[in-house]
Amino acid sequence: MSKGFLITIEGPDGSGKSTQIELLKKYLETKGYTVTMSREPGGTPISEKIREIILDKNNSEMVPMTEALLYAASRAQHVAEVIKPAIEKGNIVICDRFVDSSIAYQGYGRKLGEPVTIINGYAIDGCVPDLTILFKLDPSVSMGRIKRDQDRLENEKMQFHQAVFEGYLEIEKKFPDRVFGVDAGRSIEEIHMDICARVAKFLK
Amino acid sequence: MSKGFLITIEGPDGSGKSTQIELLKKYLETKGYTVTMSREPGGTPISEKIREIILDKNNSEMVPMTEALLYAASRAQHVAEVIKPAIEKGNIVICDRFVDSSIAYQGYGRKLGEPVTIINGYAIDGCVPDLTILFKLDPSVSMGRIKRDQDRLENEKMQFHQAVFEGYLEIEKKFPDRVFGVDAGRSIEEIHMDICARVAKFLK
Repeated sequence: MSKGFLITIEGPDGSGKSTQIELLKKYLETKGYTVTMSREPGGTPISEKIREIILDKNNSEMVPMTEALLYAASRAQHVAEVIKPAIEKGNIVICDRFVDSSIAYQGYGRKLGEPVTIINGYAIDGCVPDLTILFKLDPSVSMGRIKRDQDRLENEKMQFHQAVFEGYLEIEKKFPDRVFGVDAGRSIEEIHMDICARVAKFLK
Repeated sequence: MSKGFLITIEGPDGSGKSTQIELLKKYLETKGYTVTMSREPGGTPISEKIREIILDKNNSEMVPMTEALLYAASRAQHVAEVIKPAIEKGNIVICDRFVDSSIAYQGYGRKLGEPVTIINGYAIDGCVPDLTILFKLDPSVSMGRIKRDQDRLENEKMQFHQAVFEGYLEIEKKFPDRVFGVDAGRSIEEIHMDICARVAKFLK
């Protein structure tokens, strides 16, 4: 039995990730793959408890380093309990947000820089994504699409979301083999076709 | 107005730290110092929420790195909200457990090693203790003194507590100027006299 893969989905909230994740899952299943779906922050009971602290709007006094360390703690548990075991079983794991979210949001958005990469290196314990699909949509567009009540991070000013988006573009430049950027301003069908083509190429 | 100091109190649970912290506080106050008392894990509302996750006996599946990152997250918040502001005001901060607890419990006890030091370097953001009082009492004695219901870490096997204690002894060797070890097997009065002598020397 061969080892599975980790595909991570990244980009701003409101960029259409959830819709495309469902479509990608169906595509992979029709190809005969077993897919494990997960998301961050969260993915295990302990990670969900950590997620509650991170996103609680009452925790407005939280400093950036606390936020970065909590995301990393949640991720360490998620990797150990869910991602690694599923990859070992030969599954394809699709994870909605992973280590690049921390680098973009805390490294670039909160301006913590390099320490976020180092801390997360310990958290993922060698579990680097095999392929990352980055949804590229300017925050001035993506933020307008979010209709529900916003959490502590979504509540941040537009300047923060712009810095996060620029962080994502830096990550794309830095890891061109791993990160596949898609223009998320197009139709659902166009984006899905793009993603399937890239994933198919990867699975060959 | 001059800057204050950070005194940390370390050692196994059941080694008599709480009693001595109260006595030290009174000693310093009679000398005219303003004392800020705190403890870890905890010390701020956010840190207390993190503490609940760490110590909850139901979270038995927690992996060592998650534990280490949660302690560091709690500490980052504690340093930013409580310790640094108090030191800036010129107070003496007495903190029941701090960064050395992480190095002893997660670095040595959980065998995570050096990463714990690096992660905590980010969490404390330059706030290294000025003086650390280490209560030295073999776990075979200290653990027997704990009468209350034990939390997730106290529940660990004696082998774990021995590794933690050896970690503390390593830290004492490594930082002889900062760490003052006291034989915690003696009378309350003897220990208190020892501590006062060392603190008085430090404050001169």
